[in-house]
Amino acid sequence: ILVGDEPRILEAVSKDSSSPGLPPSITIEHEPLCIGMEEPPSAVFRSKKRCSLAMSARLVAEGRAQAFFSAGNSGACMAAALHHLRALEGVDRPAIATLLPNALGWMLLLDAGANVDCQQHNLIEFALMGHVYAKSVMGKAKPKVALVSNGDEKIKGNTLTKSVASILELLPINYIGNIEGNALYSGKADVVVCDGFVGNVILKTSEGAAEFVQNTLKREIMRDPFSRLAGLMLKPAFRRARRVADYAEVGGAPLLGVRGGAVVGHGRSEELAVLNGIRRAAEGVSHHLMEETEALMKSCATAQPRKIQAL
Amino acid sequence: ILVGDEPRILEAVSKDSSSPGLPPSITIEHEPLCIGMEEPPSAVFRSKKRCSLAMSARLVAEGRAQAFFSAGNSGACMAAALHHLRALEGVDRPAIATLLPNALGWMLLLDAGANVDCQQHNLIEFALMGHVYAKSVMGKAKPKVALVSNGDEKIKGNTLTKSVASILELLPINYIGNIEGNALYSGKADVVVCDGFVGNVILKTSEGAAEFVQNTLKREIMRDPFSRLAGLMLKPAFRRARRVADYAEVGGAPLLGVRGGAVVGHGRSEELAVLNGIRRAAEGVSHHLMEETEALMKSCATAQPRKIQAL
Repeated sequence: ILVGDEPRILEAVSKDSSSPGLPPSITIEHEPLCIGMEEPPSAVFRSKKRCSLAMSARLVAEGRAQAFFSAGNSGACMAAALHHLRALEGVDRPAIATLLPNALGWMLLLDAGANVDCQQHNLIEFALMGHVYAKSVMGKAKPKVALVSNGDEKIKGNTLTKSVASILELLPINYIGNIEGNALYSGKADVVVCDGFVGNVILKTSEGAAEFVQNTLKREIMRDPFSRLAGLMLKPAFRRARRVADYAEVGGAPLLGVRGGAVVGHGRSEELAVLNGIRRAAEGVSHHLMEETEALMKSCATAQPRKIQAL
Repeated sequence: ILVGDEPRILEAVSKDSSSPGLPPSITIEHEPLCIGMEEPPSAVFRSKKRCSLAMSARLVAEGRAQAFFSAGNSGACMAAALHHLRALEGVDRPAIATLLPNALGWMLLLDAGANVDCQQHNLIEFALMGHVYAKSVMGKAKPKVALVSNGDEKIKGNTLTKSVASILELLPINYIGNIEGNALYSGKADVVVCDGFVGNVILKTSEGAAEFVQNTLKREIMRDPFSRLAGLMLKPAFRRARRVADYAEVGGAPLLGVRGGAVVGHGRSEELAVLNGIRRAAEGVSHHLMEETEALMKSCATAQPRKIQAL
C-alpha cells in the first residue's frame, strides 16, 4: 500500500517506462498532507494528525497493514509509531535498532536514540528484544548479546550498566558481558545494548571517525602526483570499501517492541534504500518478530518474577 | 628526576653510546618496587604503598617536583595522583583529558574515563578546567567549549546534559552548545565535555571505527594485483595518515583539577611518546595551569554564587 498524494504517486510511476502503471497487488491510500523534514516530530499527532505518516501508522494499528516503512522525518516516524502502535506486553519503552556492519557481517545496536534516559529495566528489555531480532530475523542461532561499557571486565561500568549486567546473566540469552567501543566492529557481539544517548554517540562518532580517516587519507594521497596516480588506480577498491557501510544496503532501522512493524529509513534514501527498507519491514512480519518478542517477554516475566518485578 | 630502580636506570643509560652517563641536571630517586600492568590500581595505595609510581606522586605532593609522568599502569597512575595530590579548591572530581586530532589541529576531550557516574556540577567543572587548559596550554585565545549530546539542537540531550547546558551558558567561557559525534573530528570544538563513561565510548569507538575502515580498505586493496600495486605505491601516504592520530605525538593525557601535574602515558610508549609525555607535564607547569584553573574556579563561584551553590 503506497500512502501519499495519489496524483504525485501516479505521476512518479508513469515516469518509469518499464512499468505501465501500478501492478494490481499495489494499492494507494490517498493522503496529500505530509510532515516536512524540519517540522517537530510531535506535529504527527498534533497539528498534522492527518498526514501520510500518521495514516501509515494507523493502517498498521487497524490491522489493514502489518508493518510500515518511511524515509521521511525520522523523529516524526518514531512518534507516529509510538503514538499509534501500542507497546508489546512487558515492554516499557520500544527501541530503535540499527544494523551496523562488522568484521564478520552485521550486528544490531539498540537503543539507537529513541530513549536518552534509561533505567535498568529498559536496558534489559532492549537486550531481550535484540536477542529475538538477531535470532528470528538475522538468523543467528545463539546471538551473542553484549552491554556497552567502559571496559571488558565485569567490574567496569557505571552504576546503571553494572546493575543491568548482574541481571542479564540470569536471562535465557547468550549474554557475553561488557563490550568496549574498540571491539564493536570486530564481530565479538551480534547484539549491542546501550541507552539511546550512548547509542547515538556510538553511531555518530563512528561516522565522524570514519570520515576523518577517509579525509586524512585523501589529503595525504593528493599531496604528490605519484600518490594521486595510485589513488586513481584504487578508486574501485575505495568504492567497494565504502559500500560496506552503506545505509542503502540496510534500508532502515526497525522499531522494536511495538504491536506491528515500523522501519525508519534515512532521509536521503533512494531506490535501493527504499527497497531494502520495505524488505526489512516485511522480514520482521514473516519471521514473526512481534510474536516471538512477546513470548520471550512473557517467559522471562514468569521465570524470574521476583527479579523482573524488582526492576 | 627519574624514579625507579637505580641500577636498571643506569644500565639503560649506559647503553646509549651518545651520552656517557646522566647529565648533572638529571637525578635518580631509587625505588625498586613497581606496579605491574595487570595489578589492581588500588595496589598503589594499599599493598604497594612503596613503589616508583607512588613515590613520583609523593614527590609532587611534597613540592620536590611540580609534575610527574608515567607510562605504567594507567589506573594505578590515576589512583596515585588522586590519592597523593589534593583536588584544587572548587573541584569535586579531577578529570582525565585526552588530546585528539581533528580537521583543524587538536581538541581536548574530558572526562576520558576517570568518572563514569557524573552529576551536573562535575560536567560544569570539566568545562571550566578544559577551557583553562585549551587557553593556557594549547594557546587557543577563545576556546570553543561544547557538550556531547545526541543532537546539535538545544532541545537535544538527556536529563543530565540538558541541565548542564543551561548553566554552561551563564559561565565566562565560549560555550558553543551541543556537539554530536559526527562533528567531533571537524574542528567545531576545542574542548569537548562529557562524563567518563561517554568519554570512554567516544575514544574507543573512534579507535574501533578507524580500524574497521582501514581493515575494510586493506581487504579491498588486496583483492587484485592491480590494486595491490597501487596500494604499495601509497604506503608512504598511508604511513603519514596514520601518524595524524599517533599517541606518540601526544605523549599522554593530563589529569586536570589536582594540585600539581600528572600526565598518564600509554602503556606501549616508546622514546618519542615518553619525551612528549614529559613535555606535556612540563607545559602544564610553565603555563601555570594549576593557578589559572584555581583562579577561574574561584571567580565562577564568586560571580554565580546562587547558581554554583545550587548545583
